Amino acid sequence: MPKTTPPDADSSAQQRRLQMADIARLAGVSTSTVSRALAGSKLVSEETRVRIMELARSLKYTINIGAQNLRMKQNRTVGVVIPYDSATRQHLSDPFFLSMLGSLADALTELGFDMLVSRVDAEELDAAAAPFDTGRVIGIILIGQWRHHEQLNQLAARHVPIVVWGAQLPQQLYCTVGGDNVAGGELAGAHLIAQGRKHIAFFGDINLPEVGQRYEGLCRALRQAGMAVDPALQVSVSFLPDGGKEAVQELLRRGLPFDAVFAGSDLMAMTSINTLRQRGYDVPGQIAVVGYDDIELAGYFHPPLTTVQQPIREAGRALVAQLLELVDGRPAPSLQIPTQLIVRSSSV
Amino acid sequence: MPKTTPPDADSSAQQRRLQMADIARLAGVSTSTVSRALAGSKLVSEETRVRIMELARSLKYTINIGAQNLRMKQNRTVGVVIPYDSATRQHLSDPFFLSMLGSLADALTELGFDMLVSRVDAEELDAAAAPFDTGRVIGIILIGQWRHHEQLNQLAARHVPIVVWGAQLPQQLYCTVGGDNVAGGELAGAHLIAQGRKHIAFFGDINLPEVGQRYEGLCRALRQAGMAVDPALQVSVSFLPDGGKEAVQELLRRGLPFDAVFAGSDLMAMTSINTLRQRGYDVPGQIAVVGYDDIELAGYFHPPLTTVQQPIREAGRALVAQLLELVDGRPAPSLQIPTQLIVRSSSV
Repeated sequence: MPKTTPPDADSSAQQRRLQMADIARLAGVSTSTVSRALAGSKLVSEETRVRIMELARSLKYTINIGAQNLRMKQNRTVGVVIPYDSATRQHLSDPFFLSMLGSLADALTELGFDMLVSRVDAEELDAAAAPFDTGRVIGIILIGQWRHHEQLNQLAARHVPIVVWGAQLPQQLYCTVGGDNVAGGELAGAHLIAQGRKHIAFFGDINLPEVGQRYEGLCRALRQAGMAVDPALQVSVSFLPDGGKEAVQELLRRGLPFDAVFAGSDLMAMTSINTLRQRGYDVPGQIAVVGYDDIELAGYFHPPLTTVQQPIREAGRALVAQLLELVDGRPAPSLQIPTQLIVRSSSV
Repeated sequence: MPKTTPPDADSSAQQRRLQMADIARLAGVSTSTVSRALAGSKLVSEETRVRIMELARSLKYTINIGAQNLRMKQNRTVGVVIPYDSATRQHLSDPFFLSMLGSLADALTELGFDMLVSRVDAEELDAAAAPFDTGRVIGIILIGQWRHHEQLNQLAARHVPIVVWGAQLPQQLYCTVGGDNVAGGELAGAHLIAQGRKHIAFFGDINLPEVGQRYEGLCRALRQAGMAVDPALQVSVSFLPDGGKEAVQELLRRGLPFDAVFAGSDLMAMTSINTLRQRGYDVPGQIAVVGYDDIELAGYFHPPLTTVQQPIREAGRALVAQLLELVDGRPAPSLQIPTQLIVRSSSV
């Protein structure tokens, strides 16, 4: 159950009354004249009706059933929101997020749309809808599901057209587009097991839906191979650039033997490898490492990185396609895009 | 001289008349009443004057001296335009462009601004001003100067607040923020010469202002060392991902001896190194390579890349700061941000 009540029909009706009052004031007529004009009543002169409709349109005030399409025709801007963690106020430097931004820009450009980018505090995701509520965008694509499932459900419940990059979760009202994280984790796990690795560590915050599913995939591969899952080999670290370094340090502190690392992102895999080598470990000789994302430069890393490829180009197109369905008032089912394992030398 | 005439004062006055007619129609009053109201005339009732001012504001119609500030207060959106080459319709995947987009998003978020991203055909740069002309953004930051100096001058001449990431050029009406490309090229050249390299190739399209200045810096370093500049060692290739590969192939085809490469971007340096090694060359043993940009992953490349660092984080802040000066009606001088050489193992 959501912790707070979503804005109800009453407040929406109240907002409508306020908007009608605005139009009445600007047009120099009464609110009831505005109401009649918007309803197409013959009691209002044609001149006044046209004037009020134009005014409503200029104010991007959506009044009736046809309003959605009207707005769709006039407004060619899609909102892209990338929430930030208020604790770290993290900069936008993760190559995966940046590639996704590029992919969305390309997909939107192809269809003649602009992209309004804003960042909001992840603890106050309701602010993500502001560009929609003020009529500046036709809908929102949100990159960074984090742990804000319920806030996202609330946005969907009040009919904000929103598509989220991330994992499919139970009781989900909003549309997600994401890679198949469980399958991705399973591919990585099965690969490391096939290489004879016995003690596979996992780096990443499993409270985040996507990361949790990647870990679940690894656990599934272990169980299928008849191997035990050791929770002490899972280290929760953030996606910040130092995450990989911190995870290696924490794992070494725990003193458990390990011969492989499956990291929740490529950047984390890369910083893990650098830290392991500084500590004198040979990668992949002693420790095999697999990343996640297949960012542009994963193949150029030393050693070239084995990783689970996220379908970034298809992702941009799919996010836009589902959003346009919602904007047109059609249902937009959540999509999972298949992932594949790219084997390079960091693990073999 | 610009090839076409910039829109003159007449067309601006005409546009103003059209907007006044719009307001008059929506308010149900005459155009002269609108004109008087906007001028603050006592001949118009207080009620009508307030109504018309609000209407003008709602329509983001800027009328008078105070309009700039008015717009500035209401609109917290900055346009970011990344032109594309119409021939290649290049995707937005270059890590430098993406990092710049991230840096701008961070700088704008810090100041409470949103970012409207659009891509336009580089041959029709006038379209870059559309988000400003329609009142959706307070000004434009353009990333990708290409060869469109005159089109950018025309935008500045018609008072579009615009700041361009790129090189300072003669007869420049628009404001640029950029790295010091000549100094950057000189640093790279002097470093390679100090390493004993005699035949330094340059990869990049020197018709692009920034790339041309990097090459000029290299030539300056050569001349200072009393070495000849051999134009046959300069290979013009694009910034597309295959640029480095094509440049190496072309240079080998020319059959000239070379023992170093200075590439116009890190991505180009990386693909050059990969191609050189596929052809059996040792980097840096036989061929030393220096890149340009210092993208996030340059240090993780194999071998770690020596490169000229572009000040990406400062760049975002500086671009935004200069734009806000222009928006506030103050002069914004062009800025050059110092660059530095980061020496890693691809060149020593």
